[in-house]
Amino acid sequence: MSDMPIYTATAGTFYGAGVGPGDPLLVTMKTHQLIQSADVVSYIANTDGHSQARDIARYSLAQRSTPVEEVAVPMPMSTDRILANAAYDQAAEQLRQHLQAGQSVVFLCEGDPLFFGSFSYLLQRLSDDFNCLVVPGISSVNASASALQQPLTLLQESFVVVSGRHTDEQLRSALEQHDSVVIMKAGRARPRILAMLHATGRWQDGNYLEYIGRDNQRIINDLDNLADEPGPYFSLFVILRQERPA
Amino acid sequence: MSDMPIYTATAGTFYGAGVGPGDPLLVTMKTHQLIQSADVVSYIANTDGHSQARDIARYSLAQRSTPVEEVAVPMPMSTDRILANAAYDQAAEQLRQHLQAGQSVVFLCEGDPLFFGSFSYLLQRLSDDFNCLVVPGISSVNASASALQQPLTLLQESFVVVSGRHTDEQLRSALEQHDSVVIMKAGRARPRILAMLHATGRWQDGNYLEYIGRDNQRIINDLDNLADEPGPYFSLFVILRQERPA
Repeated sequence: MSDMPIYTATAGTFYGAGVGPGDPLLVTMKTHQLIQSADVVSYIANTDGHSQARDIARYSLAQRSTPVEEVAVPMPMSTDRILANAAYDQAAEQLRQHLQAGQSVVFLCEGDPLFFGSFSYLLQRLSDDFNCLVVPGISSVNASASALQQPLTLLQESFVVVSGRHTDEQLRSALEQHDSVVIMKAGRARPRILAMLHATGRWQDGNYLEYIGRDNQRIINDLDNLADEPGPYFSLFVILRQERPA
Repeated sequence: MSDMPIYTATAGTFYGAGVGPGDPLLVTMKTHQLIQSADVVSYIANTDGHSQARDIARYSLAQRSTPVEEVAVPMPMSTDRILANAAYDQAAEQLRQHLQAGQSVVFLCEGDPLFFGSFSYLLQRLSDDFNCLVVPGISSVNASASALQQPLTLLQESFVVVSGRHTDEQLRSALEQHDSVVIMKAGRARPRILAMLHATGRWQDGNYLEYIGRDNQRIINDLDNLADEPGPYFSLFVILRQERPA
């Protein structure tokens, strides 16, 4: 009988730890163990102080035997890069002080830390001065396929990920050239995405998902049932061929 | 203090459960719990009887309080679809008998069940007759980014996944058109991939990884140090721009 290895946060080290897309049980044992042993647990919060990443990790935090210092990093929901970079500068400075004091800092990331996430910007600011480690998490791409019970890729199928931040031409090119297409951050771009699905003949291939793995999860397999209006930030499209290779 | 929810395998249900890329601690708590409660645990094995997926889940299996029935599914390592489909037919028939007897069957999948995996073919064969559920796993794509400590995607960058099974023209097109490119199943295709990285001017952007998260993990950031010869099946390339958006 072999005991599960124990992974403990190391002094003065900055960890990016994925917590997955929303279901608290999709946290890995590695991230769970890091949360148990960290000196400081940090995460992005909105202006109300609410943090999705902390919410997903709430059971892991509740299992700690000792209290933990939590650092909520306020992040404006804005596409203004100057605002965002100022927020990352400020957060990095705050975390730097904990790391310099020899504390281990675990930064919780929704989904995977290095896939369309804020963690990358903190890593850029801290990696020259501190030991950094990254623990991957389940991305919403993989969680979507599981929720749909449809393969993302089979054999020679090609697979591309784009986002609602891409231009119409980029969306069109992805839809025309690739078998499987995931469109992340659909939110405000939903009407543009729907128009491109029509224009490229991929309407029937489209599935829409929001808040995957959360209590308010919603899946629409027939896009005729989806309103042509902006939606929540945590929404995405998964476009899969009707005929798949065997 | 809130207790962690418990996820229990349901009678007569077929589960695909990702175990992640290799590190036993990258198993999610959901898959870990499923393994604790399953009547039958199944996995692909090679002709020697060795199973990577079982190996990754060995600690979770060892923690069970009761013995479990294990079903190893032999799978020929071949690109011959007739051979492979015959093996899937036979495996589905075997699992069908357990499900019909009302047992819960958890099929362990390396990485994520629905991303380039064998589970899709079993799901196709069993989903009409049985309740099926899929638990996502960390894919080697996300694990690679963590191992490299490099973002897969930032802002408007585009991201495509191809495999060594794609043609030269498909590889070329992916490398020319997308910022971030992951090439899975590099194995025997390594010389072709290296030639395409040269031809498209992406040589400097390339990173090579094999056996991520296992004891024999190997990462090469400078492709000049990588032999121009076929490599192991569990190897991949991650191609990232030298200059990233801020």
